[in-house]
Amino acid sequence: MALSFTAADLAAQFDLELRGDPAQSIDGVSTLARAGARQLAFLANPRYRSQLAHSGAGLVVMRADDAEGFAGNALIAKDPYVAFAKIAALFDTRPATTPGVHALAAVDDTATVSPDACIGPFVSIGPRARVDAGAVIGPGCVIGEDCAIGAGCELVANVTLVRRVRLGRRVLVHPGAVLGADGFGLAMEHGRWLKVPQLGGVVVGDDCEIGANTTIDRGALDDTVLEEDVRLDNQIQIGHNVRIGAHSAMAGCSAVAGSATIGRYCLIGGGAGILGHLDVCDRVVVTAMSLVTRSIREPGEYSSGTPLMDNRSWRKSAARFKQLDALARQAGARHKEPQ
Amino acid sequence: MALSFTAADLAAQFDLELRGDPAQSIDGVSTLARAGARQLAFLANPRYRSQLAHSGAGLVVMRADDAEGFAGNALIAKDPYVAFAKIAALFDTRPATTPGVHALAAVDDTATVSPDACIGPFVSIGPRARVDAGAVIGPGCVIGEDCAIGAGCELVANVTLVRRVRLGRRVLVHPGAVLGADGFGLAMEHGRWLKVPQLGGVVVGDDCEIGANTTIDRGALDDTVLEEDVRLDNQIQIGHNVRIGAHSAMAGCSAVAGSATIGRYCLIGGGAGILGHLDVCDRVVVTAMSLVTRSIREPGEYSSGTPLMDNRSWRKSAARFKQLDALARQAGARHKEPQ
Amino acid sequence: MALSFTAADLAAQFDLELRGDPAQSIDGVSTLARAGARQLAFLANPRYRSQLAHSGAGLVVMRADDAEGFAGNALIAKDPYVAFAKIAALFDTRPATTPGVHALAAVDDTATVSPDACIGPFVSIGPRARVDAGAVIGPGCVIGEDCAIGAGCELVANVTLVRRVRLGRRVLVHPGAVLGADGFGLAMEHGRWLKVPQLGGVVVGDDCEIGANTTIDRGALDDTVLEEDVRLDNQIQIGHNVRIGAHSAMAGCSAVAGSATIGRYCLIGGGAGILGHLDVCDRVVVTAMSLVTRSIREPGEYSSGTPLMDNRSWRKSAARFKQLDALARQAGARHKEPQ
Repeated sequence: MALSFTAADLAAQFDLELRGDPAQSIDGVSTLARAGARQLAFLANPRYRSQLAHSGAGLVVMRADDAEGFAGNALIAKDPYVAFAKIAALFDTRPATTPGVHALAAVDDTATVSPDACIGPFVSIGPRARVDAGAVIGPGCVIGEDCAIGAGCELVANVTLVRRVRLGRRVLVHPGAVLGADGFGLAMEHGRWLKVPQLGGVVVGDDCEIGANTTIDRGALDDTVLEEDVRLDNQIQIGHNVRIGAHSAMAGCSAVAGSATIGRYCLIGGGAGILGHLDVCDRVVVTAMSLVTRSIREPGEYSSGTPLMDNRSWRKSAARFKQLDALARQAGARHKEPQ
Repeated sequence: MALSFTAADLAAQFDLELRGDPAQSIDGVSTLARAGARQLAFLANPRYRSQLAHSGAGLVVMRADDAEGFAGNALIAKDPYVAFAKIAALFDTRPATTPGVHALAAVDDTATVSPDACIGPFVSIGPRARVDAGAVIGPGCVIGEDCAIGAGCELVANVTLVRRVRLGRRVLVHPGAVLGADGFGLAMEHGRWLKVPQLGGVVVGDDCEIGANTTIDRGALDDTVLEEDVRLDNQIQIGHNVRIGAHSAMAGCSAVAGSATIGRYCLIGGGAGILGHLDVCDRVVVTAMSLVTRSIREPGEYSSGTPLMDNRSWRKSAARFKQLDALARQAGARHKEPQ
Repeated sequence: MALSFTAADLAAQFDLELRGDPAQSIDGVSTLARAGARQLAFLANPRYRSQLAHSGAGLVVMRADDAEGFAGNALIAKDPYVAFAKIAALFDTRPATTPGVHALAAVDDTATVSPDACIGPFVSIGPRARVDAGAVIGPGCVIGEDCAIGAGCELVANVTLVRRVRLGRRVLVHPGAVLGADGFGLAMEHGRWLKVPQLGGVVVGDDCEIGANTTIDRGALDDTVLEEDVRLDNQIQIGHNVRIGAHSAMAGCSAVAGSATIGRYCLIGGGAGILGHLDVCDRVVVTAMSLVTRSIREPGEYSSGTPLMDNRSWRKSAARFKQLDALARQAGARHKEPQ
């Protein structure tokens, strides 16, 4: 099966202006640098503009500005990356899934599985769990008691929902993710740790995406909550009773400690950490590997850390960092701390 | 089935003083802010004291001090969080597990499984492995050769014990954890890596808890060891031949490199790192995302990193960090390093 | 079965000079501190030299220098760690694997599995996947559509290859690793995230090793690539379209963001981060928990961060870090930034 579209088809389907040959055939997508005569590429980042002249692409999605003087076939888009994402989706042929429960799955008698859902091999579904229409549960997934999987969700493979995890519609969970494990609640008594029961659940809104090996603990009393359209990359850790606002995105290896609240449209960089019991307002950007140790009340970009240096120079600066207070006092600094 | 207790029942069972109505019925637990008339809440953190007057809770566990002038029903506890944890455990109804081996499990002929253990579907148990009485092995777990699971352990789901992993009694392992994978041992020979065999095992003491997607490598020659009552949160990495002392706790995403030794009653913050081949004494606290690069010989709290700033201000400080040595020299600093 | 070798056997097999009793029997390996009379130990790190005199080892691998005046049996090696690794491999008896497909595995009709491969229980192999001769696929692994596993590979257990993942020969993948999950590609449209299709794959060269719970996303258009003999420790995150050069090694919890290129023979420390769309040249060392925010064009060692301090002193330095620009200006610093 070979998919193929004409440039005119694509222009019409995505409501884009076409400059060039309407009959140009496109049967795939690629980068500007590697695209061939029957492939579509895109130019969004000005950094790659120099590649345009030499690109072998049969068709390029770009802004009107960038198309000035371009001799090839162009689709003009206000946001070429968005247009490209939509066109590329035409070529993202996922394997067909057949509704039904695989013979080597273990489904509890009290679970409810839509006949329209697809349950793969080696899937375990526990008491009172529910899987709605169109959901795809890949090989090796474990769905514990009292979990609910909304319509159109996909759990790719080897995903574990421990208990009381409720996914909205069209939630995509990548392999190895663990949702609903015990929050990390401990009290010290007579020199030994006493486990604090974790009686809440996890609630995930519609259209969220949860990366590979990401972990989201269930709440101690209330639930841990992801609002709709939250996007989590791989290996993220979300502690119990965290709440993440709609349309926020977190990059790989970032983490949020228990009972922190993150606003809407936040962007959390890779490896960044957010301590517990604090609030981050809407539209906050945290740069990679920064640590948020206090609530943030103003939208904007926040950072911590020091710049990369060659190790020899770094050692000198690092040694001086230890002396900073003494150095400042010696300099007669009587600054108030600015913030 | 609805659990219900009177205030008098709870006072008697946990040896607490009751102030108020002994007949008050309690059928659940919640937060001060959300508890209803038949729920128990607790007040431990002074920060939440203002919520007490408006709480709808039928019964509140608190210190004697906080109960002064409180009009509702109170249970008086020296440590309200501990008392609450114990009462909440009454309502933490885990699903019943039936002893026996699921029909869709694969148990090696040379493995020994107690008839009193519960082996879930899609569990694989390898040669010479041993599972003791009361242990619960959830769906998808893999127990490799020569592993031993003590009485009362729980492996929730999709846990992997690779080989030579010995768990004490009542060890709780959350989904996705991997114990006993090869330590990261490499030698360079003629420009290629040579793998160094990892011949040791992993020994985990009684009452340890190991978080979701946490990894603990087996030792190169000796074992990697967790003493009793060690508590590890999610996504922690423990290198080969590490030893962690009893009653220490590590928060999510922290890591310990090979052959480091951590003392007893240590608290390691989220995302903190501890380099290899060093020793941390008892009762050390490491704050979140700090890096321990040398042995610590004195109990206390240790930190590294820089504070969170708005990005524009941070860029200025970060640029100056590179100049620190020059700035200090210019200031004529002849300080000895203080530590 | 007890393995045993004489000192003379080992000297001959590994082409080492023997000083001492050729008939000394060796039936295991251990550390200098713990080795017994029939065990072999090694001395490579000068730090452990003082243990030599008191070691009970029946045979010790060491450099000629270190053997001066040593009364026991010694094997002389230019690189004792390399020699030890090879000898220790004799005692690393992996469980025998029987070729064939386990009765409780699910193999798609269109997949190709070598009769010489070993497919464990609860393994799922998808459409058009290929498993070559001698490959061992442990319990619970999921191999998605269009994946290829080269000859002699081992996927230990609960490994997930999502789709279009091609492993070379002798690749070792530890439990919980996820290869070929969707890269983290998002575009914002009308206030909602739009998923960008991830149409590439993952290509892993011969002799690579991939640690437990490590994640390697597949490319957006081109592939994510690990060249030969790359060694990744546990819990590493590799973003889409990253390329890692041959013989590079990364320690646990490090991460590389999308489209970064890492050279050959690089060493990336634990917890270090490398931002996306940048290049790191050959033979770069990045120290633990450093963040690489720009391309590196010169071989050498690079660092960021601040040293560990007691928390009280650290708070003072951290507060002063915020004032650094003001302090520098006050000091009349008119330095150009040195790099």
